[in-house]
Amino acid sequence: MSLEPIRILVTGGTFDKEYNELTGELFFQHTHAPDMLKLGRCELEVEIETLMMIDSLQMTAANREMILERCLAAPERRIVITHGTDTMEQTAGVLGPRVEDKTIVLTGAMVPYTFGSSDGMFNLGTALAFVQTLPAGVYVAMNGRYFGWDSVKKNRELGVFESRD
Amino acid sequence: MSLEPIRILVTGGTFDKEYNELTGELFFQHTHAPDMLKLGRCELEVEIETLMMIDSLQMTAANREMILERCLAAPERRIVITHGTDTMEQTAGVLGPRVEDKTIVLTGAMVPYTFGSSDGMFNLGTALAFVQTLPAGVYVAMNGRYFGWDSVKKNRELGVFESRD
Amino acid sequence: MSLEPIRILVTGGTFDKEYNELTGELFFQHTHAPDMLKLGRCELEVEIETLMMIDSLQMTAANREMILERCLAAPERRIVITHGTDTMEQTAGVLGPRVEDKTIVLTGAMVPYTFGSSDGMFNLGTALAFVQTLPAGVYVAMNGRYFGWDSVKKNRELGVFESRD
Amino acid sequence: MSLEPIRILVTGGTFDKEYNELTGELFFQHTHAPDMLKLGRCELEVEIETLMMIDSLQMTAANREMILERCLAAPERRIVITHGTDTMEQTAGVLGPRVEDKTIVLTGAMVPYTFGSSDGMFNLGTALAFVQTLPAGVYVAMNGRYFGWDSVKKNRELGVFESRD
Repeated sequence: MSLEPIRILVTGGTFDKEYNELTGELFFQHTHAPDMLKLGRCELEVEIETLMMIDSLQMTAANREMILERCLAAPERRIVITHGTDTMEQTAGVLGPRVEDKTIVLTGAMVPYTFGSSDGMFNLGTALAFVQTLPAGVYVAMNGRYFGWDSVKKNRELGVFESRD
Repeated sequence: MSLEPIRILVTGGTFDKEYNELTGELFFQHTHAPDMLKLGRCELEVEIETLMMIDSLQMTAANREMILERCLAAPERRIVITHGTDTMEQTAGVLGPRVEDKTIVLTGAMVPYTFGSSDGMFNLGTALAFVQTLPAGVYVAMNGRYFGWDSVKKNRELGVFESRD
Repeated sequence: MSLEPIRILVTGGTFDKEYNELTGELFFQHTHAPDMLKLGRCELEVEIETLMMIDSLQMTAANREMILERCLAAPERRIVITHGTDTMEQTAGVLGPRVEDKTIVLTGAMVPYTFGSSDGMFNLGTALAFVQTLPAGVYVAMNGRYFGWDSVKKNRELGVFESRD
Repeated sequence: MSLEPIRILVTGGTFDKEYNELTGELFFQHTHAPDMLKLGRCELEVEIETLMMIDSLQMTAANREMILERCLAAPERRIVITHGTDTMEQTAGVLGPRVEDKTIVLTGAMVPYTFGSSDGMFNLGTALAFVQTLPAGVYVAMNGRYFGWDSVKKNRELGVFESRD
């Protein structure tokens, strides 16, 4: 019932990819997070901040440090990070050991939001709910589930996230 | 990280309304919950059970007793109820004082899932996340927020749920 | 290959209905014809004029006279009329005997454009194509077909338009 | 008012591309033409035949000969060809001089049908209307317009089709 403010840090990923009809290629323009919150009739106090707009396969160690810095510097104690699914567990692995008092939830999508069949709205809903209710720590929210940062891996054959034991 | 089984009890509501192109009216056919879980690439262990398919303005005290009975009888300790938004707080009010060891989350939608601009996927995502993480009790999940059963009301002018103080 | 200017006269109908999420009812706000032309990447010279925004079951004889007058007064020789499907044949019947030198095509939709499963884009495409290629006369374009104004009826059981012999 | 049978020859193109959520790439699976006709509530007598499923940039002279052969061999006198937009004018140029008694309309889409913002439904509507009403010849239908096979070119900067003078 709390209404603690939440920050959404946008890093790109499939979530925000769009189709360029002139080239037939996927590209990044701007984040759809505001549209998605509006579609979800979201009444949470949310601040959206775009850190980068990249495919997570292109994400460098420096990018991950920058994400970490923004998490630590943000005034909010509850942070959702939108992220490409391919290296979400790596970024979670960078944040996990170094974030203490905050609840941070990484999420993404298997299909771009602007395409018809995206899991983006569902995932964003779960991430915003988990970030309000889970204790301090770094998590990945995908497939309706949440995973601790040190126990998650993406199954690339199936395109789903699993516990790593 | 637990994967406790979840039951979704379907009662109808805007969530599941469809457009009848022969009459131009809205009607109920069957629940879209399975399609929605598939679209969300949901990997939770979910059992879907349709109790009724009605507009919540039509819901009777007997209907609410039936919902309560099914909640108590269900083997799962975590239950999501899809419900029309107009009387969601009444049903929550029937369940709240009589459910003890279970986490029950009611959710719904302002726009039918089959229409383009529905909040259904977002709300279902939040409900499934809240039901995994909130302590035993009865809650309403709408607008990205959760509310205890005894402190929620729908603001009909704005179409949003608010805390009742 | 001609690019004669085309006028679209908007009268309402299912085409332009929207869902009011506060009341759960369908209503008219403004026409979606401009959005639809944009989505279709339409490069025709089109002028859109809203005459009324009503369910065609509400359409009066005076409304139909007004539509006729606008057709006769319009500078364009090619006119598309968006119209509710329930009385499309009546309006066509008013226009048919009194329009001489113009090609007029009435079209509509079985499902609102703003809902996911609308036939609106397809129907608007056919109407704009028929209006460019058919000889002077009044026609109904539905279900991919065109019908002369005096030989069309809506089959209300099936929701399709048929030839009336 | 005729209901002459129509054949749709499918060759692929953006029209039928889909998003592979495991690889993040676009690919071909099967044609969406049947779904699109159903969505359009199309009541024409249509036969759909898939000739190939390729990006039109990959289309060879042999592919074009095969399309020509199928056009000539088909029992129908009215044929729609779905085709990638990048080389639509080349294929039209192969068919144009060698088809006599048939009306053939090539169409395509700038955005895949399965993505939300496709022009596919609109274009298919125009193509099916033009093919019923234009005299024998080979045409391209895009952007709501039709072009003779020997007077059309795609403006790649704007992503629209224009007359070539």
